[in-house]
Amino acid sequence: MGKHPWIDHFGFKNDKTFNQRYLIADQHWRKEGGSILFYTGNEGDIIWFCNNTGFMWDVAEELKAMLVFAEHRYYGQSLPFGADSFRDSRHLNFLTSEQALADFAELIKHLKRTIPGAENQPFIALGGSYGGMLAAWFRMKYPHIVVGALAASAPIWQFEDIVPCGVFMKIVTTDFKRSGPNCSESIQRSWDAINRLTRNGTGLDWLSEALHLCTPLKNAHDVQHLKDWISETWVNLAMVDYPYESNFLQPLPAWPIKACTEIVMPFCTNGIDDMFEPHPWDLKAFSDECFKQWGVKPRPSWISSMYGGKNISSHTNIIFSNGDLDPWSGGGVTKNITNTLVAIIIPEGAHHLDLRANNAFDPMTVLLARSLEVKYMKQWIRDFYASPRKKH
Amino acid sequence: MGKHPWIDHFGFKNDKTFNQRYLIADQHWRKEGGSILFYTGNEGDIIWFCNNTGFMWDVAEELKAMLVFAEHRYYGQSLPFGADSFRDSRHLNFLTSEQALADFAELIKHLKRTIPGAENQPFIALGGSYGGMLAAWFRMKYPHIVVGALAASAPIWQFEDIVPCGVFMKIVTTDFKRSGPNCSESIQRSWDAINRLTRNGTGLDWLSEALHLCTPLKNAHDVQHLKDWISETWVNLAMVDYPYESNFLQPLPAWPIKACTEIVMPFCTNGIDDMFEPHPWDLKAFSDECFKQWGVKPRPSWISSMYGGKNISSHTNIIFSNGDLDPWSGGGVTKNITNTLVAIIIPEGAHHLDLRANNAFDPMTVLLARSLEVKYMKQWIRDFYASPRKKH
Repeated sequence: MGKHPWIDHFGFKNDKTFNQRYLIADQHWRKEGGSILFYTGNEGDIIWFCNNTGFMWDVAEELKAMLVFAEHRYYGQSLPFGADSFRDSRHLNFLTSEQALADFAELIKHLKRTIPGAENQPFIALGGSYGGMLAAWFRMKYPHIVVGALAASAPIWQFEDIVPCGVFMKIVTTDFKRSGPNCSESIQRSWDAINRLTRNGTGLDWLSEALHLCTPLKNAHDVQHLKDWISETWVNLAMVDYPYESNFLQPLPAWPIKACTEIVMPFCTNGIDDMFEPHPWDLKAFSDECFKQWGVKPRPSWISSMYGGKNISSHTNIIFSNGDLDPWSGGGVTKNITNTLVAIIIPEGAHHLDLRANNAFDPMTVLLARSLEVKYMKQWIRDFYASPRKKH
Repeated sequence: MGKHPWIDHFGFKNDKTFNQRYLIADQHWRKEGGSILFYTGNEGDIIWFCNNTGFMWDVAEELKAMLVFAEHRYYGQSLPFGADSFRDSRHLNFLTSEQALADFAELIKHLKRTIPGAENQPFIALGGSYGGMLAAWFRMKYPHIVVGALAASAPIWQFEDIVPCGVFMKIVTTDFKRSGPNCSESIQRSWDAINRLTRNGTGLDWLSEALHLCTPLKNAHDVQHLKDWISETWVNLAMVDYPYESNFLQPLPAWPIKACTEIVMPFCTNGIDDMFEPHPWDLKAFSDECFKQWGVKPRPSWISSMYGGKNISSHTNIIFSNGDLDPWSGGGVTKNITNTLVAIIIPEGAHHLDLRANNAFDPMTVLLARSLEVKYMKQWIRDFYASPRKKH
């Protein structure tokens, strides 16, 4: 399905719209006492998120829910300027979380207007990772549009110095420590081994062959690239440390330009609390690189200005779920803030495991988390039906 | 004083900043247990609002408050593109309430960073009319930045069909009904008298002379213009129906381009419930005129999407004050929504009389309103100091 939001919600010079894709499943929806679960799409094709968010499908019947999956602008088929969307910073200018949230708000108004029975139903936002950040922020900024939000593995505090920049890699390291004796130590030693091996041509050749590299290593730059690639693999393995096999994998820096604008997440390693080579966070170098590559300068403090940083206690009805195995939990909300801003911890959980479909290998803790999430959502739905409602 | 916010908070292509003016008065400010009253400037020079918001000066000592008056972008000396700011829709593109609120948020962060002692103080937003709308919306969207808002005579519901389009002129009419026998009836009859008189050249000349017009009336278009001018005068008289003389007067359509974008307020008359000639609200004609004049198309439903329309009950700590004499009260919040979203009615009040300085001619009801406002603000300040605070 398609809806046509403005390309620019916050300016009036450009009055063009684009085709935003969304998916709907209504086989379990009931107009009497039902609800509408709204996935706030993140960076990727919405079909992919639809297929990897089995939790929504699993609870649809119990919540008499319609499911809506809304695609994020600039991803999948929702391209504001078609093939030109990524051409330059002029075309990429409208790729911000604020514009995406406005798309979602306008889409829900559209659904209420066009689907008979939808107008008087409670909408609940759900999302994982950056989609979870969007779900939480959506409830904060548009509480008149969604009655609550389930923000799974949403690192809303991975900004500025709200959490230490090293926390992410520290959790990755802990995961490997847990997974076997000397595991993290072996990885830690591997960097130095690579460095020593690749001091001369013989070593470079030997390592290229041993690792079956398509392109042989030639210099220090290539070696750094290899180490980065290996680091990323360890990170990804930690993120998707699910109790069963899955094809769920995404590269870490999934927001090429976006990370260069408002989503500036400081990361660092020191080689002491983690198993990586020391890399301090260097905002200046990061900023210079962004400007060189995209012609834009990051605004690292804007997200806190906009969404409140740690001061979010005046908001209500948001569940923050986090898996202890997930390195992103370091920037997440892992303690209750109020009795309607609640944290759910899944000790054996990786990156938003709770949003995935029920599986025979699921640990008990994720089953408990899911049932608690359903309990809160039912409460929001009950509150909605118990309160007097207005048209606007 | 000046601060340099981004011209565009919601896009990254344009990374220019502009000089935003603000005024500070701190003679009554106390770092221990004090507060900061922040006027969310509206359409006009901030010095003018500073001089016409005596209430803030009157309560500064009692609240140990610093006063800050922030100028709205595109007004006074806060021009994003200097003399070019109003040249065309490209330059006017950043004149929206969302950008103005973001300016205020960034300004407060700047003040906390640069004024020793300000970081750990509660900020309260205050404003009248459109400035009152901004104060209320600021608290709704940035509750982490201001602990509460006093929104005086803020017609936040004068949009779409949230209130009947005729309510404004009906209140103007009621004011004239109150002010003397046959007053509104005489005005109502005047339109027909003008119409009959000006059917021919003799009548046009006679009326031009009788009214001492600089340019004589020539045709029906001129006559309509005269009637519009007279109507506007009645409206302004109703708005500033203060108990004492004041030089406070502003033309009604104070947002030339802005009213053509997001601030689309439907007005109409029917000649039955009001003393004016019937003029239905015609969105299509309005939109066409905007496009002809500015090359932009209004988005009449956006403000409700963004700020919630009638569904604002999940927010907290906003006082909506309204004078019964003020025609803008028709689009205002005149009943309590929750026990922290409260309405204060001033039966003898005109357009945000409560924000003006104490005056010997003030009716008792406005004195009561002001003391109630102070009571709520003190409560917010107490709550702030009683709660644990975080850095971000």
